[in-house]
Amino acid sequence: MVTVTPWEVKGNIDYEKLIKEFGLQEFKEFPKECNTLPLFRRGIIFAHRDFGRISEAIENKKKFVVMTGLMPSGKFHFGHKMVAEQLVLYQSLGAKIYLTVADLEAYNSRIPDMKALQQTAIEEYLTNYLALGLDLKKCDFYFQSKRSKDGKKSNAYYSLANMFARHITFNEFKAIYGEITPGKMTSALLQAADMLHPQLPEFEGKAQPVLVPVGADQDPHLRLGRDASQRIKEYNFVQLSSTYHKFLPGLGGGKMSSSDPTSYIALSDSPEDAAHKIKKYAFSGGQATLEEHRKKGGNPDVDVSFQILRYGLEPDDKKLQKISDEYKSGKLLTGELKAITIEKITYFLKEHQKRREKAKKQVDKFLF
Amino acid sequence: MVTVTPWEVKGNIDYEKLIKEFGLQEFKEFPKECNTLPLFRRGIIFAHRDFGRISEAIENKKKFVVMTGLMPSGKFHFGHKMVAEQLVLYQSLGAKIYLTVADLEAYNSRIPDMKALQQTAIEEYLTNYLALGLDLKKCDFYFQSKRSKDGKKSNAYYSLANMFARHITFNEFKAIYGEITPGKMTSALLQAADMLHPQLPEFEGKAQPVLVPVGADQDPHLRLGRDASQRIKEYNFVQLSSTYHKFLPGLGGGKMSSSDPTSYIALSDSPEDAAHKIKKYAFSGGQATLEEHRKKGGNPDVDVSFQILRYGLEPDDKKLQKISDEYKSGKLLTGELKAITIEKITYFLKEHQKRREKAKKQVDKFLF
Repeated sequence: MVTVTPWEVKGNIDYEKLIKEFGLQEFKEFPKECNTLPLFRRGIIFAHRDFGRISEAIENKKKFVVMTGLMPSGKFHFGHKMVAEQLVLYQSLGAKIYLTVADLEAYNSRIPDMKALQQTAIEEYLTNYLALGLDLKKCDFYFQSKRSKDGKKSNAYYSLANMFARHITFNEFKAIYGEITPGKMTSALLQAADMLHPQLPEFEGKAQPVLVPVGADQDPHLRLGRDASQRIKEYNFVQLSSTYHKFLPGLGGGKMSSSDPTSYIALSDSPEDAAHKIKKYAFSGGQATLEEHRKKGGNPDVDVSFQILRYGLEPDDKKLQKISDEYKSGKLLTGELKAITIEKITYFLKEHQKRREKAKKQVDKFLF
Repeated sequence: MVTVTPWEVKGNIDYEKLIKEFGLQEFKEFPKECNTLPLFRRGIIFAHRDFGRISEAIENKKKFVVMTGLMPSGKFHFGHKMVAEQLVLYQSLGAKIYLTVADLEAYNSRIPDMKALQQTAIEEYLTNYLALGLDLKKCDFYFQSKRSKDGKKSNAYYSLANMFARHITFNEFKAIYGEITPGKMTSALLQAADMLHPQLPEFEGKAQPVLVPVGADQDPHLRLGRDASQRIKEYNFVQLSSTYHKFLPGLGGGKMSSSDPTSYIALSDSPEDAAHKIKKYAFSGGQATLEEHRKKGGNPDVDVSFQILRYGLEPDDKKLQKISDEYKSGKLLTGELKAITIEKITYFLKEHQKRREKAKKQVDKFLF
């Protein structure tokens, strides 16, 4: 069975089917500036809603907002890295970033320990975002539980979440989310406020397009936010835009998930640990025997080491193509492919962990 | 059929039955200071939960908080006056008052027009509270939608409402409220925060007992707040205390309600209009004919003019007893009883409306 909800992803996901089921739009074109990101040009960002409004803003150098949230549970891994890369890209294109720690959602749907959640958010998530290039100065970073030091801003944000409750029925909640609890419901309303409050006069002022780049499992939140925004007549909300990226496979298949340490490589893993995980857990698309592999070749589409390269660790398209070709032909063996990935990861982690040390100094002010 | 919920009251209410159904405690004793209020000594405040904690605070001159909310719909009438009188009493006994305008609840359960709701709250409700003697300086008056200018306070208040969602199931919501909508659910969570946030470190600091004086229909909110407070382990909430007053009868019977102008006398009604309403609409406990009335006497228990006197307009117990006795004996006629009530109301409204003019100057700062 395939399940794709904000709180659970399992099974083999057919993205074509997801596009139809969710009513997403396929990407036909995007601004050339987005091409710099492997995620875009390799079709990993595979669908959108109303991205035209964002393309138009990028092309005409108009203001826009990019909003996303992070769920502070477990380790920041290569799956999370995809969102950070998109934020850094949009920031370079002039976007104002809104980045929220979904601590109230995590409290309501996962671990009811706010202090621990907030510490993880800072030490694990924010530190990695900064090390990946996010500029805090062009970013409104906040906790759902502590929107602002400015009461007017906080009041506007939380009131919006409360007011949305009038405009959505229980049956709609059930249709969008399936099973629902009071905690998930209030979380969903708060998420709608996260996505839409940048347009309030207390924040960016005039209505600006807001892009929400998410994994495909987060679309229910978008559907709720889009519906709610058009029903609340007090505000002339510009309809939300969103993009959807495919899930980075976990080492053993499925989705890379922070709840299973054998599925992920964390950005704080030592190069040695990462190498060990690749060798031991990364699912191979190769054949059972050397002889068979030389004859039939490997399948890069299901090979997790290859996918890690494809999701961005090998930014050079030509080099990636060559690896793919050689793997398919049987020239490149699984062990050799893993060695390439390990080399790339080792280099990345070493450099990244230096940048992490610098970033740690920047996040001190958020620790309490 | 009898319905008593926060959103609907109808039918003839048996308060003895309500005490058993809701699990309230009957009043056996209260501090002598409370005796000054006719509502207390005449048994109109008929039940409580954990009032002992408040008695103890009053008797030992310890700090306590009295919290209540107002629903800014329609006119402020004699039914609403009961709450104001209690606030003024407790303020005189040293309590800090928390008074909220339930504008988000009204938006979600009644009229989705925040500006209009807020204007009514100030011009109609707050003005009358002040004219009835509430001291704004010893009162934290706020809108649910605008908790504070201080972001820390707002964040703590709204986060508390959100966190409560984890601790209440849908089935509990249904058991407490009967029919429930997303709007009513978020309103209920926000009300729980209204009642409990005075105990947070961002507000009164150390845990202080909080008394919530309400009409009997509001008990579901208390049950939710009491349950939620004991489940949220982050805070050592002192259990809520509450008192329950009977409903002032509407002129034609039932509950005095701002949704039916022939049921209420507003504190902004002219003395002439009030007199007209009493004459025309006030249900009489008298007999059908003069002869019969002289013989059998009237029934003050169902006579609305008498009840208006009993609910406080005639503060002198002896005078009230005399009126009751003479009405029962048939000596006092319905027209004569109405004349007494009209005289009292006329005097009260004239004096009150002078105080209203003064109060209007104080509320200017809340108008926007």
